[in-house]
Amino acid sequence: MEVEIITIGDELLIGQVVDTNSAWMGQALGDEGFHVTRKVTVGDVEADMLSAFGEAMERSRIVLVTGGIGPTKDDITKKTLCRFFDTELRFSEEVLANIEEMFRTTGKEMNLLTRNQAYVPAKCTVIQNRAGTAPVTWFEKDGKVLVSLPGVPYEMKWAMETEIIPRLKQKFRQDMYISHQTFWVSGYTESGLAMRLEKFEEELPPFITLAYLPTPGLIRLRLSAYYPDKETEDAAMAEQSEKLRTLLGGNILAEEDKPVEILIGEMLRKKKLTLGTAESCTGGKIAALITSVAGSSGYFVGGIVSYSNNVKHQVLDVSNLSLDTYGAVSRQVVEEMAAGAMKTLNCDCAVATSGVAGPGGGTPDKPVGTVWIAVAWKDTVKSQLFRFGKNREQNITRAANMALLMLNDLLKE
Amino acid sequence: MEVEIITIGDELLIGQVVDTNSAWMGQALGDEGFHVTRKVTVGDVEADMLSAFGEAMERSRIVLVTGGIGPTKDDITKKTLCRFFDTELRFSEEVLANIEEMFRTTGKEMNLLTRNQAYVPAKCTVIQNRAGTAPVTWFEKDGKVLVSLPGVPYEMKWAMETEIIPRLKQKFRQDMYISHQTFWVSGYTESGLAMRLEKFEEELPPFITLAYLPTPGLIRLRLSAYYPDKETEDAAMAEQSEKLRTLLGGNILAEEDKPVEILIGEMLRKKKLTLGTAESCTGGKIAALITSVAGSSGYFVGGIVSYSNNVKHQVLDVSNLSLDTYGAVSRQVVEEMAAGAMKTLNCDCAVATSGVAGPGGGTPDKPVGTVWIAVAWKDTVKSQLFRFGKNREQNITRAANMALLMLNDLLKE
Repeated sequence: MEVEIITIGDELLIGQVVDTNSAWMGQALGDEGFHVTRKVTVGDVEADMLSAFGEAMERSRIVLVTGGIGPTKDDITKKTLCRFFDTELRFSEEVLANIEEMFRTTGKEMNLLTRNQAYVPAKCTVIQNRAGTAPVTWFEKDGKVLVSLPGVPYEMKWAMETEIIPRLKQKFRQDMYISHQTFWVSGYTESGLAMRLEKFEEELPPFITLAYLPTPGLIRLRLSAYYPDKETEDAAMAEQSEKLRTLLGGNILAEEDKPVEILIGEMLRKKKLTLGTAESCTGGKIAALITSVAGSSGYFVGGIVSYSNNVKHQVLDVSNLSLDTYGAVSRQVVEEMAAGAMKTLNCDCAVATSGVAGPGGGTPDKPVGTVWIAVAWKDTVKSQLFRFGKNREQNITRAANMALLMLNDLLKE
Repeated sequence: MEVEIITIGDELLIGQVVDTNSAWMGQALGDEGFHVTRKVTVGDVEADMLSAFGEAMERSRIVLVTGGIGPTKDDITKKTLCRFFDTELRFSEEVLANIEEMFRTTGKEMNLLTRNQAYVPAKCTVIQNRAGTAPVTWFEKDGKVLVSLPGVPYEMKWAMETEIIPRLKQKFRQDMYISHQTFWVSGYTESGLAMRLEKFEEELPPFITLAYLPTPGLIRLRLSAYYPDKETEDAAMAEQSEKLRTLLGGNILAEEDKPVEILIGEMLRKKKLTLGTAESCTGGKIAALITSVAGSSGYFVGGIVSYSNNVKHQVLDVSNLSLDTYGAVSRQVVEEMAAGAMKTLNCDCAVATSGVAGPGGGTPDKPVGTVWIAVAWKDTVKSQLFRFGKNREQNITRAANMALLMLNDLLKE
């Protein structure tokens, strides 16, 4: 079943806000067999919204709209939907009661503008928003559905999970099954990997496709299937996945399309180990990734961001001799950082990074992109030198992901 | 001048990748007076791409397309552009030379698939990609322009900055000027602020609009102007900004639409101060934000992520008495963390956070969303209690942004 997503807001067009809603929705819908075929973003401009609604309802049976339903004047989605569906606003006591309840629980004061959120289009099903004050509205026309959702991510997610996806599943019988299987592959360029998999790709059944997603330092390889019979699809995906494992062997670092911070959390929990970090060039990114996962306090004790050499020495006990002889970006220092983290933080295993993120700080010997990573567990320390690229943001992300994948690899042994 | 952006890739639709390209492009284009009016995302599907190209060329004079031009089979943008512009692929020796040069400098091995990237549409201007191997192609038809760019963010940004924006400026004389002014406002709900500004909003000149962007803990208020005469526009924006300053006074925490990590970096550099962090509930997010800025090693010495109480005590010297008496989430502990960070890390000022990010860990006294933040400079320590919401990711982001804004406020005195 095909879905089109429309996100509304000038802030999305001028780039003040990155649209993360539609990616989340694509994933949540895909998990339930709905297939997002197009996403459109328009500003808070009536004509643009009307044309986007019209085109989407022409093409797709399900249209999900987010944004533009706040209490302020720049938000005109509700008014524009009335125009599109040829209806008018009516006051809903039910919605008002929900808004009042929301204000009561947060202890904030209600005002006239908030009260106005209780005006809803007459020709629609109103779905109470239990995560905020702007109601969700569900329109139907010629067997097609358009739903208007809040743009605030937290409210949108609540509405999708508890109301919209269940209702869509009830209304539209799934006639196709979607599944994806992702492999994190290291050690190949994108084209090198494509050549390695040329024959494999040619022999894929027509309902399975292969996609290459090059990410900093790694390629995510995705098999996607889209087929009416679930059993056949699952069997074919299992067969092709097995072929890939045989072809790529040790170059497959992980198999799930889970972020590395989730993978490592599951590993640590399973093995009942605690983790600490010692970060130089990644500057806290690894700790932030790990602690973005709910429940990470169960295995993460803490970390040291040792940006200056002084902190490396004073807090992590890296020897001045190593710092002077080999420099901060060296095998010796990064291994001492990992060991120091385990000692200072009193934990079972550690990751450490030291490198030149850029754009400044490069030397002929250690150009921008040079990163040493060490992972340690008990008496084992493994370290590796990487030569990433010139882009600071990418170098930090690559190093952080790679550090967690190296630790995952060390712990799985 | 109006621009439409088309981003291509199944990974964007299924939500495996968040489209950050188009936000960046919207900002870069806006800075030069180009106005993005619509963004469309389609998958690697010929029919969808053709309809997106057709609709966009119908509506807009400038169409920018990213993605789908890699060396692998799933990438079909080049072929589809040939179809759309009724042309065919030809081999370009020039492009081949550039690709060979790219491979020489990175020391990687070239292969047949990479060589195929030298095939380019016959009816277009080829722009060499000095940041990667996939060439940028520029098409013109009936006075309109369509440019196909790489989807890899680093390569896209390079092409936009050095080639595409300069060429667009040369080709299309600007007849309208765009400017924005953003205010970070605290202490209001969205609707409360809108009521406060009702009269101000009514009296705005017709070419200036006001937008409310509620972000975790703060509202970003944006004035946008779109007018043919730059001088008039600048004067009007200055006048309205001044009015807002008078109306909102101390509730304006900062005035630029720069991320807080840039604001604080500029402040520290100006005052020649060094910074350290002590993070519990933000888990390294603050350090990661600060170090995402190039040159941050000039003022950031490091940080401690003290997730466990043990690390708070051992590394940051928080007293066990305070931990036992008041709990980790308390004014006493967060102030001791800030002081401990200045001592352990030997820096001029510090920020510290301790809170319940959620979803677990809440108590009746300290529910999820309770966060204590302290900022310290010399002998001054300021701390404040926040009650954010239920969402972990939002609580972490709110606390990190608020901590940096509190420090900014302390240092500006």
